[in-house]
Amino acid sequence: MSPLAPGAVIGILGGGQLGRMLALAAAELGFDVHVLTPEQDSPAARVAARSIVADYDDAAALLAFAEAVDVITTEFENVPAAAADALIAAHAIVAPNPRALALAQDRVAEKQLFASLGFETAPFAPIDSRADLHAALARIGAPTILKTRRLGYDGKGQARIAALADADEAFAALAPQPLILEGFCAFERELSIIAARGADGAFGAYDLSENEHGGGILRRTRAPARVSAEIEARARAMAQLLGEALDYVGVFAIEFFLMPDERLIANEMAPRVHNSGHWTQDACAASQFEQHIRAVAGWPLAATTRLCDAEMINLIGDEIDQWRAFAADPDARVHLYGKREARPGRKMGHVTRLIRR
Amino acid sequence: MSPLAPGAVIGILGGGQLGRMLALAAAELGFDVHVLTPEQDSPAARVAARSIVADYDDAAALLAFAEAVDVITTEFENVPAAAADALIAAHAIVAPNPRALALAQDRVAEKQLFASLGFETAPFAPIDSRADLHAALARIGAPTILKTRRLGYDGKGQARIAALADADEAFAALAPQPLILEGFCAFERELSIIAARGADGAFGAYDLSENEHGGGILRRTRAPARVSAEIEARARAMAQLLGEALDYVGVFAIEFFLMPDERLIANEMAPRVHNSGHWTQDACAASQFEQHIRAVAGWPLAATTRLCDAEMINLIGDEIDQWRAFAADPDARVHLYGKREARPGRKMGHVTRLIRR
Repeated sequence: MSPLAPGAVIGILGGGQLGRMLALAAAELGFDVHVLTPEQDSPAARVAARSIVADYDDAAALLAFAEAVDVITTEFENVPAAAADALIAAHAIVAPNPRALALAQDRVAEKQLFASLGFETAPFAPIDSRADLHAALARIGAPTILKTRRLGYDGKGQARIAALADADEAFAALAPQPLILEGFCAFERELSIIAARGADGAFGAYDLSENEHGGGILRRTRAPARVSAEIEARARAMAQLLGEALDYVGVFAIEFFLMPDERLIANEMAPRVHNSGHWTQDACAASQFEQHIRAVAGWPLAATTRLCDAEMINLIGDEIDQWRAFAADPDARVHLYGKREARPGRKMGHVTRLIRR
Repeated sequence: MSPLAPGAVIGILGGGQLGRMLALAAAELGFDVHVLTPEQDSPAARVAARSIVADYDDAAALLAFAEAVDVITTEFENVPAAAADALIAAHAIVAPNPRALALAQDRVAEKQLFASLGFETAPFAPIDSRADLHAALARIGAPTILKTRRLGYDGKGQARIAALADADEAFAALAPQPLILEGFCAFERELSIIAARGADGAFGAYDLSENEHGGGILRRTRAPARVSAEIEARARAMAQLLGEALDYVGVFAIEFFLMPDERLIANEMAPRVHNSGHWTQDACAASQFEQHIRAVAGWPLAATTRLCDAEMINLIGDEIDQWRAFAADPDARVHLYGKREARPGRKMGHVTRLIRR
């Protein structure tokens, strides 16, 4: 595609914090933003030129959206396939493409693609019955994690199977949805890479970052990760392979487990900007949000240069109540999402500290 | 004032690029933004939660605006005194305060304040008649510049008097407005400082920058300025004095002439974020826009740390047509304002290059 001119309209599916930060980045480049979201008074809508409040299965709303914008992107992977199909049928340009979105919606398909590209994954098995589960447990062993194949995020839709005796309870908690059993990886650290692929096929990636989760939610990211140049290069090469395999346009993330013997286990990919890349807003010349907008707008990618080290912490639920302390720290880069209610587990903001050596 | 909580509403008078960049910075901190501007489809309104299109003398609109927001700030100094009075009468918090705005609207009052603070200025004289002009010219000599006392910006409302014979023509071009004659300074370089004063009286300033004008419009800014630490300290001290004298809250700029003998001549102040501070978006931990929002929201100031050197160029009028070349330069930080029409002399965007030594 030829690059979108200033004043063109970027359509964003989803009204949450990722959509908001994408909208802000798009505005800096001179674009208008339209948001489609089922949520009234959403964080993204409040910084967009226009918003449509509609369900993702509202065909008329999707059509109107497609007609008003020049390209459509998304802040979340769980875009219903029917919605993506309706947008494509309306001749909209959708980036990333529906195939990449569909892949990330199915943990089994995702791991199968990883394996086909030569990425090591945790042992896994699709589970549709108790019999499947017991057979897979016999092969993989405990401890393992039983997950829904679809619609899982931030630790939701998961049950740990510490011992074989837990299997039936875990199955009962998650069935009858299609499931996947994943072997447990005794990893040393969790890493992620934020990568981008342009409409011209160009590839760019930020330095690997190192992540700490709690309760299945990202709590803290440190960049750069304390890893060797060889590991860094291996992760970049994997991201480039994945981007090409999916003919991907935009920013995506791959989460890795780093094993004690330096193997990199590909855990999952996210076909969007990613929480573990928020540090790029403050520590890099161009943020992951700008990079994504550039890619979907058909612009060349920006440099991914890191200007300094950074540490990002998420503000979850009522941690937002500490905003006064963060506001008073002259070196804390504060990013709040404008969410009206601080429900438990809800991502309300993040704070990045720049580390100058 | 106690700091505004996330979700509070920042009101911005003015819908141009400065309002737009202020609105984007406010959103990053979790604030909602309302904009009041006479302009339909303004750059700032397209990134604001709400906009009111009304003239600045529309009393009902000003009242509704004041009632909907928690604090009011402005992107331009020429806020009509009646508008500021109406907002204050409606019990709005207005930052910077109307006295600072009024001062910057009158070149004579501004220079008189500078002089009272011990700042050196160019020789000047208020001019209300041809007789005033001839008397002042006899004292100051040519070349000089005759300017309107009010409503001048970007080189508008000015006439150069190269020789005494030009005086009557210059007077005819600008009268009957109140005028000021300013002596010409054979400066070596033009410098500016972007400073901030918090609601708590705290002071912060970015490194001095060095500016090149063309046709009365800023073309290029380089930061840091190539000046000694002594000059840097002198400019900071002057900015701090001025901020205190005006009980100022928010970001302001002082433009200086640096003379060959290292004297700093205070040329003018701007009671707002300033074009010569746009480099702070990309080269500093916190931009001038965030700093201004922090100050007017009663938050502590952020650090003004510069992470790298920078050079900013303005895109004026049809220079915006070069957007493809800037978009293709991976190291160019592109900022476009979403203006629909590229009229001659109109600021359409800017590009900052980071210089890593």
